[in-house]
Amino acid sequence: MSIFPLPPGSTIGVLGGGQLGRMLAMAAARLGFDTVILTPEAGACASRVAARTIAAAYDDPEGLDTLAQFADVVTFEFENVPAAAVEGLAALGVETAPGPLALAIAQDRVDEKIFLNASGAPTVDFAAIDSAEDILAALDRLGAPALLKTRREGYDGKGQTWVESHADAAAAFERIGRAPAILEARADFVRELSVIAARGRDGDIVAYPLGENHHEGGVLRRTSAPAEVSAALTAQAQTIAARILTKLDYVGVIGIELFELKDGQLLVNEIAPRVHNTGHWTLDGCEVDQFEQHIRAVAGWPLGPVTPLAHVEMENLLGSEIEAWPTLAREAQARVWFYGKGRPRPGRKMGHVNRLRPLKD
Amino acid sequence: MSIFPLPPGSTIGVLGGGQLGRMLAMAAARLGFDTVILTPEAGACASRVAARTIAAAYDDPEGLDTLAQFADVVTFEFENVPAAAVEGLAALGVETAPGPLALAIAQDRVDEKIFLNASGAPTVDFAAIDSAEDILAALDRLGAPALLKTRREGYDGKGQTWVESHADAAAAFERIGRAPAILEARADFVRELSVIAARGRDGDIVAYPLGENHHEGGVLRRTSAPAEVSAALTAQAQTIAARILTKLDYVGVIGIELFELKDGQLLVNEIAPRVHNTGHWTLDGCEVDQFEQHIRAVAGWPLGPVTPLAHVEMENLLGSEIEAWPTLAREAQARVWFYGKGRPRPGRKMGHVNRLRPLKD
Repeated sequence: MSIFPLPPGSTIGVLGGGQLGRMLAMAAARLGFDTVILTPEAGACASRVAARTIAAAYDDPEGLDTLAQFADVVTFEFENVPAAAVEGLAALGVETAPGPLALAIAQDRVDEKIFLNASGAPTVDFAAIDSAEDILAALDRLGAPALLKTRREGYDGKGQTWVESHADAAAAFERIGRAPAILEARADFVRELSVIAARGRDGDIVAYPLGENHHEGGVLRRTSAPAEVSAALTAQAQTIAARILTKLDYVGVIGIELFELKDGQLLVNEIAPRVHNTGHWTLDGCEVDQFEQHIRAVAGWPLGPVTPLAHVEMENLLGSEIEAWPTLAREAQARVWFYGKGRPRPGRKMGHVNRLRPLKD
Repeated sequence: MSIFPLPPGSTIGVLGGGQLGRMLAMAAARLGFDTVILTPEAGACASRVAARTIAAAYDDPEGLDTLAQFADVVTFEFENVPAAAVEGLAALGVETAPGPLALAIAQDRVDEKIFLNASGAPTVDFAAIDSAEDILAALDRLGAPALLKTRREGYDGKGQTWVESHADAAAAFERIGRAPAILEARADFVRELSVIAARGRDGDIVAYPLGENHHEGGVLRRTSAPAEVSAALTAQAQTIAARILTKLDYVGVIGIELFELKDGQLLVNEIAPRVHNTGHWTLDGCEVDQFEQHIRAVAGWPLGPVTPLAHVEMENLLGSEIEAWPTLAREAQARVWFYGKGRPRPGRKMGHVNRLRPLKD
């Protein structure tokens, strides 16, 4: 007999102790769930709003055993969870949501692009790279400049570099540490959008209104949502989301980054099998935010509405920008989310602010 | 030099570990604060979202000493905090907000009524009672039936009884345990309203739109907000709130229960120097809910807007009503707040549900 839907009083396990885990724990508490965090980081910001923390490496058998004792289901706040952790939990009879397939796909940029195209979710052209010679051959097909990224790890612009020309191939491969990589054709996009979608255990799928994103140096600066888009563009994004979620037999929230081309076509840039920075606007802009939506899905509850109540401009607070808190606290329409991370390091995500204005009719 | 406004990363102490403490801790976390809970109750529901819990009686010197070590400021989730606790914390150099005056006033129903009337906040007629003979004399002036309440303690209809006639006086005094009491004239009201207001450390005052309340057996069942009221009635309530808050030199959120008489006059039924059950609608109906507003005030931040984003029908879930959670989880417009209290006891507040609908123009 299925343990789902989980009754209030059940415990949600979360791998990872950062701000996403923190906001997941707060959403879980709202629904009457306890949260247990497994993280190797001492004093993790998620731990301070969780019922319990297990201090262990993600693949530590003893830590996973303890997690399995307390948690009725386990989710994660980042996609680079070791496969050993998910397998270890499965062996202990505890399900991880999203499941192993979504994790495996999201952990390898080549596998991800192959999967997306096979699902009917178009991407830029790309090539798998194992040597500088591979780059030269791929450039003939993809054109220069092209974007070289490690296949695994890397986020917020880390582990990637532009290959400016054939002459730059060898140096570019050095710059990413000669790791197995992907070379991506440059997308000639007019703007970056994202869709935050969710799939429940009953197969139900919902998608929030699109967000328009602005990155700087590979890091998200701002999301504006609901984005000003045509109904056709929204429908296109929803179709893409539904194809990906269905094909992955997905459970939970997913973040899908999109490029909008001049001709109105959407390409998928990347997917994140978790709650997503470009969905933080939902915390103040929607009846049910992405964190509650994720907990609902993971716990086997029906999904909630994705109706927006306000227009939101979400801005990340990086590093010392958090020191502007007295000004932000005075700003009437600014709803602040501070992550409790202590001393700011340059570029570190310390919080975000959602600026609200009424929805247009 | 003042420690206020407290920077993110500071710690808010909360006396009490119930659902109000739980929702205060979640609001504090949003603003980047840690929360430390002091409660004699093991496994308190607030503890499971707080950074730290001190298990001690409210007036335990050692517990208060530990609280003072961790907390930059202390607040509470119920008004019957022992005066010794507030004095003990003050002696240790830690401020309590709201302050000792608000607590003292709210702990004695006679003092409260005297204070309210002196502040220009009208109440029903009343008399202080120390004997059955006092009741007889007071009935001559107030009329029968009249409501007899203990001066101290008592909440949700506990410690009170109707005196039906002169003949009932002695028995009524027995029913409340012959404790020092207050006899209140019956208010001939057309409905019960409440105003949730807040005052910041800078003296700024805000008030949320009024709620219309429905009690059963002395316990709140439902609040509908924003209530359908005239601008004049709202102004009257705001004036009452401002008078009370100013006179108390108050810091934080206050709940003020009101009777609306046939002629449109408002009388104050009682005040609660804390976040209030009739303000739970703000959790989903307003940009800044009453819990964040309270933390903002206590931390010395500017107050936030009290703008409603939706109309909300708040319904308390008492005792086994929580067992309807699968139905509530399926209800699209129902936002649930479950308190994580474990096994339901009859009448115990186990959660509440906010049902949203668009605001009327």
